[in-house]
Amino acid sequence: MERTLVELIAAKRDGTTLAEADVARIIRSFGDGSLADYQMSAFLMAVFFRGLDDAETVALTEAMLHSGTVLDLSSVPGTKVDKHSTGGVGDKVSICLAPLVAACGVPVPMVSGRGLGHTGGTLDKLEAIPGFRTDLPVSDFARIVGEVGTCMIGQTKEIAPADKRIYALRDVTATVESIPLIVASILSKKLAEGIDGLVLDVKVGKGAFMKTEERARALADKLVRVGTRAGKKVVAVLTRMDAPLGSAVGNANETREALEVLHGGGPADLVECTLVLGAEMLVLGGKAKDLEDGTKKLRAAIADGSAVRTMERMVEAQYGDPSVVADPKRLAIAPEVVEIRADRAGFVTGIDALTVGLTGVAMGAGRTRADQPVDPAVGIAIDKKPGDEVKAGDVVARLFVRDRAAGTGLAQRVAGAFSYGDAKPASEPLVVGRIT
Amino acid sequence: MERTLVELIAAKRDGTTLAEADVARIIRSFGDGSLADYQMSAFLMAVFFRGLDDAETVALTEAMLHSGTVLDLSSVPGTKVDKHSTGGVGDKVSICLAPLVAACGVPVPMVSGRGLGHTGGTLDKLEAIPGFRTDLPVSDFARIVGEVGTCMIGQTKEIAPADKRIYALRDVTATVESIPLIVASILSKKLAEGIDGLVLDVKVGKGAFMKTEERARALADKLVRVGTRAGKKVVAVLTRMDAPLGSAVGNANETREALEVLHGGGPADLVECTLVLGAEMLVLGGKAKDLEDGTKKLRAAIADGSAVRTMERMVEAQYGDPSVVADPKRLAIAPEVVEIRADRAGFVTGIDALTVGLTGVAMGAGRTRADQPVDPAVGIAIDKKPGDEVKAGDVVARLFVRDRAAGTGLAQRVAGAFSYGDAKPASEPLVVGRIT
Repeated sequence: MERTLVELIAAKRDGTTLAEADVARIIRSFGDGSLADYQMSAFLMAVFFRGLDDAETVALTEAMLHSGTVLDLSSVPGTKVDKHSTGGVGDKVSICLAPLVAACGVPVPMVSGRGLGHTGGTLDKLEAIPGFRTDLPVSDFARIVGEVGTCMIGQTKEIAPADKRIYALRDVTATVESIPLIVASILSKKLAEGIDGLVLDVKVGKGAFMKTEERARALADKLVRVGTRAGKKVVAVLTRMDAPLGSAVGNANETREALEVLHGGGPADLVECTLVLGAEMLVLGGKAKDLEDGTKKLRAAIADGSAVRTMERMVEAQYGDPSVVADPKRLAIAPEVVEIRADRAGFVTGIDALTVGLTGVAMGAGRTRADQPVDPAVGIAIDKKPGDEVKAGDVVARLFVRDRAAGTGLAQRVAGAFSYGDAKPASEPLVVGRIT
Repeated sequence: MERTLVELIAAKRDGTTLAEADVARIIRSFGDGSLADYQMSAFLMAVFFRGLDDAETVALTEAMLHSGTVLDLSSVPGTKVDKHSTGGVGDKVSICLAPLVAACGVPVPMVSGRGLGHTGGTLDKLEAIPGFRTDLPVSDFARIVGEVGTCMIGQTKEIAPADKRIYALRDVTATVESIPLIVASILSKKLAEGIDGLVLDVKVGKGAFMKTEERARALADKLVRVGTRAGKKVVAVLTRMDAPLGSAVGNANETREALEVLHGGGPADLVECTLVLGAEMLVLGGKAKDLEDGTKKLRAAIADGSAVRTMERMVEAQYGDPSVVADPKRLAIAPEVVEIRADRAGFVTGIDALTVGLTGVAMGAGRTRADQPVDPAVGIAIDKKPGDEVKAGDVVARLFVRDRAAGTGLAQRVAGAFSYGDAKPASEPLVVGRIT
């Protein structure tokens, strides 16, 4: 006799490994309403305690994936590769990475999210480009990936709706921090894009979701194992997220900084992160024989202008103003500037990314509820990074705000994110691990 | 800053002991809708894994208790004592125990439940008495306890509504089997009766909720500790529930058997269970100096007819036909009798109470959903008990049914509940432990 849904919850609660068909039934029943949300949240809490093995996580991923549309990109030739980051402050890598990799011949179909909590969202940043649309129909998405090599849209209602509902439940039931649930959520959305390969940027540190290297490595291992079992080429890179990545935090100014990378500029850590992930994508996509070769090809696509041209074509195809790509200064910026100065001489030893990210949200660059609008023009410039020497009174950061009075309180929060010392801190490598 | 409700769920999930005020806030928020049912079920699953210490369980009990009306029986003189059983098959003890103890001078205000799953409910059994009402208003309840010494009603909407909603959630989210949740559920309802003392009959065995003595003892220990901390006199008795208690299973026929006990008859195990629990109640109620004295007084109340008279007065006060008390054969009985015979000679070594209970439900004596009606007249008579010698072909049980054809299939299930052996089995004591 088939077990009841309550018996399946009890089985997971008691540490039993569920059959793939049972995992699929739970998700299907949630979809058709025969498993109520209060039953799903009890199941999620049981999973928090008991975990899911790789086969169960594959089954969960595929059940959530097939709760909606799986995009068909078979009309696009080549090995399609995407990148996913677990989220950090100042992480605008996708915006320069996608056109750069596409310029090297690997198609990049990218479905991104919006900012929530202290981390920003790629869609919010892209929409700082005048006219740029992220809500394109799926048919346009496939066409643009084919014509331009890349397209960046948002998660539609059709993509993994079960994941969307489950994620909303996890958020309010203290079941977010479960590695198998995180893995299934990430992979179900990414696999719905119709990709062949995926490079994962698993952030670790104070500004990341995973605070310790141990937890980040456990997540990365599971992502690679489950993604591989689901039939995809998957590589994960662990990168530090203690201080914000690059110098810009916000929407328009993060997009501006990403465009600078395509022009051959940009902060060193952002360039490094982009090249490391891009080289992995070129190898997975069969366009580089190894990482060194991949890095060389990426640098060439920046130097010869093909990366910029790909970005211009993508912006144009997505109804945006392509002239901002050549001239990033045309992007919006809030009129008032509040400077933050070092209160002592010495070295910047750290910048707390979480504090910077939360201040960005408070400024209006992010959101605390999914239905809030964001202000594209406000943001933060980090002028001194960990390891930089400062004199007392040097400007270490600037806030771009609409209201100078409100900016002063926010500036104090950002000032508090900086720590100083007498000695230059040892420089920590950006990349701390690689899992294949 | 006060923690959010999600942070409280996360704290319990991570094994933190919650402050009493936080436990109270969770229940209050559930009551006013600010904590959704899907959040409560995640909290309940976290409690399943992490437990609640005694202080947290007291806080949960009192929060659920004060979610509704606490009856005021201060107008009734004396120490009010009730009994609660964790549920078994054929457990009709309350029906004879309450009037018997009341006849000895200890007021017994009893709020009982209906049958659900394989165990029957006192209310369903009492309602087999023509006219008997269990839905009396609280003011009548207090008056009848004062005048008659006992009254037996159902849980009204006013009594512990939070427990009612939480119990319904636990039932469908695999969070029933949690000792602190069971303790808080039992005690919140019982404490709402306005009692001073409580005797708990914690059943252990194949037909009980607690299958092992270890689990039953853990539940009994916690019930006594938490009830005592909540300011009540509490004693728990552990009794075996492998075979059904007594000979009758059903509604009218269980009431009939309970009335026989008041007349000085009834099966030995049922009489023993009634006297053991009753003696504890008389000691708690200050009407017996020790258990031996209590047992003597109970026997005297049976012998002198005062127990029967108390029952008649209670039935009359609750709008029932008191003539059935003097003549229990007047209670309804289904017209068709299907006999179950021993298929071999030897000794009855066991009768699986769970199978008997589930067959009773299938016959219509119980329910699988809370809104199902029950048939008072159907039931099972167990004619041979474990330890009894039988010849092949002897009648070991009888089913009282409305439809002879359907009865034949049911009879096979009951036949399968009997096991036989060549040697007389060692007799197991009914009482296996006592916790004060």
